Amino acid sequence: MTRDIQDKIPVVILGATGCVGQKFIQALAVHPWFSIAALCASERSAGKNYGEAVNWLMPKPIPSHIANMKIQTCMPSMGRCIAFSGLDSSVAGEIESTFAQEGFTVVSNARNHRMHPSVPLVVGEVNPDHLDLVKGQKFPNGGILVTNPNCSVIGITLALKPLMQFGLESVHVVTLQAVSGAGYPGVASLDIVDNVIPFISGEEEKVETEPLKILGNLIDGTIQQASLKISAQCNRVPVTDGHMACISVKFRHKPNPDDLIHAWESFRGEPQKLNLPTAPEKPIHYSTGLNHPQPKLHRHADKEMAVTIGRLRPCSLFDYKFAILSHNTMRGAVGSALLNAELLVTNL
Amino acid sequence: MTRDIQDKIPVVILGATGCVGQKFIQALAVHPWFSIAALCASERSAGKNYGEAVNWLMPKPIPSHIANMKIQTCMPSMGRCIAFSGLDSSVAGEIESTFAQEGFTVVSNARNHRMHPSVPLVVGEVNPDHLDLVKGQKFPNGGILVTNPNCSVIGITLALKPLMQFGLESVHVVTLQAVSGAGYPGVASLDIVDNVIPFISGEEEKVETEPLKILGNLIDGTIQQASLKISAQCNRVPVTDGHMACISVKFRHKPNPDDLIHAWESFRGEPQKLNLPTAPEKPIHYSTGLNHPQPKLHRHADKEMAVTIGRLRPCSLFDYKFAILSHNTMRGAVGSALLNAELLVTNL
Amino acid sequence: MTRDIQDKIPVVILGATGCVGQKFIQALAVHPWFSIAALCASERSAGKNYGEAVNWLMPKPIPSHIANMKIQTCMPSMGRCIAFSGLDSSVAGEIESTFAQEGFTVVSNARNHRMHPSVPLVVGEVNPDHLDLVKGQKFPNGGILVTNPNCSVIGITLALKPLMQFGLESVHVVTLQAVSGAGYPGVASLDIVDNVIPFISGEEEKVETEPLKILGNLIDGTIQQASLKISAQCNRVPVTDGHMACISVKFRHKPNPDDLIHAWESFRGEPQKLNLPTAPEKPIHYSTGLNHPQPKLHRHADKEMAVTIGRLRPCSLFDYKFAILSHNTMRGAVGSALLNAELLVTNL
Amino acid sequence: MTRDIQDKIPVVILGATGCVGQKFIQALAVHPWFSIAALCASERSAGKNYGEAVNWLMPKPIPSHIANMKIQTCMPSMGRCIAFSGLDSSVAGEIESTFAQEGFTVVSNARNHRMHPSVPLVVGEVNPDHLDLVKGQKFPNGGILVTNPNCSVIGITLALKPLMQFGLESVHVVTLQAVSGAGYPGVASLDIVDNVIPFISGEEEKVETEPLKILGNLIDGTIQQASLKISAQCNRVPVTDGHMACISVKFRHKPNPDDLIHAWESFRGEPQKLNLPTAPEKPIHYSTGLNHPQPKLHRHADKEMAVTIGRLRPCSLFDYKFAILSHNTMRGAVGSALLNAELLVTNL
Repeated sequence: MTRDIQDKIPVVILGATGCVGQKFIQALAVHPWFSIAALCASERSAGKNYGEAVNWLMPKPIPSHIANMKIQTCMPSMGRCIAFSGLDSSVAGEIESTFAQEGFTVVSNARNHRMHPSVPLVVGEVNPDHLDLVKGQKFPNGGILVTNPNCSVIGITLALKPLMQFGLESVHVVTLQAVSGAGYPGVASLDIVDNVIPFISGEEEKVETEPLKILGNLIDGTIQQASLKISAQCNRVPVTDGHMACISVKFRHKPNPDDLIHAWESFRGEPQKLNLPTAPEKPIHYSTGLNHPQPKLHRHADKEMAVTIGRLRPCSLFDYKFAILSHNTMRGAVGSALLNAELLVTNL
Repeated sequence: MTRDIQDKIPVVILGATGCVGQKFIQALAVHPWFSIAALCASERSAGKNYGEAVNWLMPKPIPSHIANMKIQTCMPSMGRCIAFSGLDSSVAGEIESTFAQEGFTVVSNARNHRMHPSVPLVVGEVNPDHLDLVKGQKFPNGGILVTNPNCSVIGITLALKPLMQFGLESVHVVTLQAVSGAGYPGVASLDIVDNVIPFISGEEEKVETEPLKILGNLIDGTIQQASLKISAQCNRVPVTDGHMACISVKFRHKPNPDDLIHAWESFRGEPQKLNLPTAPEKPIHYSTGLNHPQPKLHRHADKEMAVTIGRLRPCSLFDYKFAILSHNTMRGAVGSALLNAELLVTNL
Repeated sequence: MTRDIQDKIPVVILGATGCVGQKFIQALAVHPWFSIAALCASERSAGKNYGEAVNWLMPKPIPSHIANMKIQTCMPSMGRCIAFSGLDSSVAGEIESTFAQEGFTVVSNARNHRMHPSVPLVVGEVNPDHLDLVKGQKFPNGGILVTNPNCSVIGITLALKPLMQFGLESVHVVTLQAVSGAGYPGVASLDIVDNVIPFISGEEEKVETEPLKILGNLIDGTIQQASLKISAQCNRVPVTDGHMACISVKFRHKPNPDDLIHAWESFRGEPQKLNLPTAPEKPIHYSTGLNHPQPKLHRHADKEMAVTIGRLRPCSLFDYKFAILSHNTMRGAVGSALLNAELLVTNL
Repeated sequence: MTRDIQDKIPVVILGATGCVGQKFIQALAVHPWFSIAALCASERSAGKNYGEAVNWLMPKPIPSHIANMKIQTCMPSMGRCIAFSGLDSSVAGEIESTFAQEGFTVVSNARNHRMHPSVPLVVGEVNPDHLDLVKGQKFPNGGILVTNPNCSVIGITLALKPLMQFGLESVHVVTLQAVSGAGYPGVASLDIVDNVIPFISGEEEKVETEPLKILGNLIDGTIQQASLKISAQCNRVPVTDGHMACISVKFRHKPNPDDLIHAWESFRGEPQKLNLPTAPEKPIHYSTGLNHPQPKLHRHADKEMAVTIGRLRPCSLFDYKFAILSHNTMRGAVGSALLNAELLVTNL
């Protein structure tokens, strides 16, 4: 399913110098379907070579042909194509709308349009059918706009989706989130070295609301929210990559623990069925290790695209409790955006 | 209330070279009532000068007169006195019993005897009346044995005690615990640098059971456990000192947030009324900072003896949620043991 | 030597909301001679109460009377007094000059004026006589301006001063510096968690030049630089506080190791002789611990004002090598500025 | 150059459950020439399945066929083959000798035999000709024993080798070493979180002596040590993987900086010429980034097998100074052992 270079689908990266933009570049540099046609960033970087403008933070070097690409401003001056947005929410709203207006297929990681009724908020394995919402979008020239959820929400909804069949009622979440989730420069080292911060601006609201849309049903062109209650507490911890969440769940009809583990382990979605390039083999891994999952051990699981779950045990207040771990910038951002684009391309 | 040197009460430290033992020494070196008469440790250290035997981990140097004291084995070969135990639970049970049998007043931080029906499990401000349980102890020669709870439990019960008046029903706890809680060598750096571990052996059980005894009532010489339900999930994080807990609570009759804050801020216990040397001025500080409490900012509050609470807000599944922070080796161990000894001395 | 409140010398803090400013406030809140009369910061903070404007990073709470002080802009609108400057170098140059022009005694921690021929660059124990340089300053109204060195340089010059008597020729320095040295927000956590950065802008130049002025001689109103050669390599490490330096030294006449240790241990300066409030009892501690000094163990030594040295051993390329550790924001900044002010006050 | 499974060369791993052993397994699981035939560890693990016995610390899961292999004791009870030793030095000496006596080709990472006159101490790109030393070994049955250097020494000798041509005279090294270098459990988190330790037992001696053998010449079956002087200071820092070294060098005839950079960048060794499976494309990368190299950015360079050098600049005491970074458990241990085995296999 690899395409020849000349057949590859050109894509643009909006916010190419930021943290998410860099992860997009690293992932797209080896992508079998897409090829980076343009890099867009702020006025400050525009006109420079990417290699000069960027403060490269990825553990592998900048692909050399990317290092020499000239950065453009975030204006739709190139031919229509897919535009991956790693823009900061302070500017993403307007720029993404402009690109969609100009006929681009905007695949965004920013929060600005996520909760808009006609914008799909999609995790590839969870609610690919929600992509149909784009039919209700009014952009001219064939422009469309799809989004993926917040980095914590993606791991959580993946873990919850296979539990929906048991009548999931209540979800109590406490997160322990990596610093890369805050972008760059993000969290000051003085705030986090030898410390924990029990607050991430806007995060608890996202964790409590976005899953209701994602786990909801698309009926007659409208999302009917899932009838779940979620309560979230979000913490920042001194970890580079990998968001952990400690979750308690209550069901209308309490299943057996084995039912849950089987539901997780056997879960597959459209991306697996379609064998999409960025799809993990198994979206959810249940690990029996006594002290699993852990950021260091499990963030790289299945191309950094799998959620690892562990420590399923009874809860005296809910039915069960367990811990989940996912790579916040890959599974929780870039990888899920890529899956969305791959689904869109496959459905065309 | 400082006593002359010649009037100071002699004390022995069991497990003097360990992490908790070192903290005992640091705290006792400046204590106005107690003076260290003997240091006991394992056969391996016995006979050596303390300064040679110990791998000193405290941020202030070993008091010089302590550095030159000769370490003894953990045998009650000295005159009866107070014995502070910082022993590891692998050996604490037997050694502490032996000292109590020989007439010592054993004030223990180890878990071994905590849940025994006739052993007081006391947090000075929470249940000082439980010290009366010693009347049911059968040690000869006036020996008695009292314990303080697990390091996480102390902070949690302090935070919960003022809420009991509102009919507290359910408590959901997720902890983020410092590495010093595991003693020395404790957690391997390879396991915790750039990582989080969602498991601490035996910890969740302690957090779910010890508070029921502490918050219970002493009726006719027996503890009647509090009718609370607690569910706990315990994580280790790369922080040196200071345990955080994210707590959700449900009441029989939901109070106003202001009631809770007032209850915390106005809370005082016996140690405050008696003005005990190790007592914090206020056992509980409510901080209004948006991202408080934090280990780095609040572990030293009020001589490392106060619990700092912050972020009180509604919870969609329980009534309220909030975060608490306490110094795990001082408030959570040594300081609470000292308070217990001070209460015992005052009541004699 | 504590003064009555009404007799305390009023002081102003320039850059009061910054990292160094906060440390100034913490140290001055308990200072026996000085009392904070005004807090100055940028336009952004001016007019607000200090407690609201500051992102307080110190481990002890803001002194309450300070929290309620109203912040002023950095204009000399108050009565002449001592002005402690914790300003960022981007603005320190001009503001400090303005205050000196208006007759203030400016005691600065910023780098801007350090190398000016008529500005004393002083470490209290090393070159207090250099304060005489102010006689050559041309500020009207009695204004004067003195500086203390860079945070790394202070520890290094303290360690080197007692070695000068042996004909010190060459000094090779590699530093491992804490993140608090970069101010706030300073180093991004993404850059330093699980990482080391072998570069600190401008730092190596300072370490190679400032000591030559400090260790030089004041002859006829001019500093004659010390005839030393220093080569420096500066690294940032994931440590909150405490700068380490690995030093190799060569002498014209190689002394015995015992000579060096004796020189360090017996070293006392003017601040010790005058018993100044901020002076450590011993400026230099030599620790015989096999793996000493360490940031966690030694940064708090002697009120955070002592340099701890360890691991003196022969060097096959130089004569000796050893490691030193000092608290970078206290001994390396605020504490040394206070000593300078205390020397000035004493000499008046 | 990939071999069919049935043609793969069987290898044994000694010390399979340790840190180095795990890295051997991870690397050998995808090796085109070698296939793991047996796993040996201590009595405590022997008889168990590897997956049960090991505390797996690698970021990728245990290869499933390895997880089910039964662990043997460290006795040469299998057919003669290559034995990779990741044994701790407390037991490596004897066990490795036993295997060599029994006819095994022992490729060791342990320090025990490194400095023995007839044991090659080899970095594949630096001194592959030293492998000829085995001709002087007296093991029966064709047994041979080769070693690779200490983890810090490998990076250092790689960086120095291309400089030998300029008459390298003196080398001053200060290391900042990752915790994985100490094995497991290794460094206690209480010792290294928010700390630096300026001492690693035995490390400075190795850094000062091993390179002299490696950079020496094999003349008439004997190594003539290089006429270099090295002085080392070794520090442990809170980094998971990646050893940094700050190096100053002096030459008999000072070259231009461009000569050095060219020498590094153009350096290739036998492993590159033979295109060995574990060989990096370029053993040395010179990075022009202002603050390069860094553990997080460069430890993965070229399959974790390249040394990254940066910040070449003049030194006022030596000729030049620069910083180097290499992955301590891959390039600094397992990868270099594999290269040695690949060289041996190629030369057979």
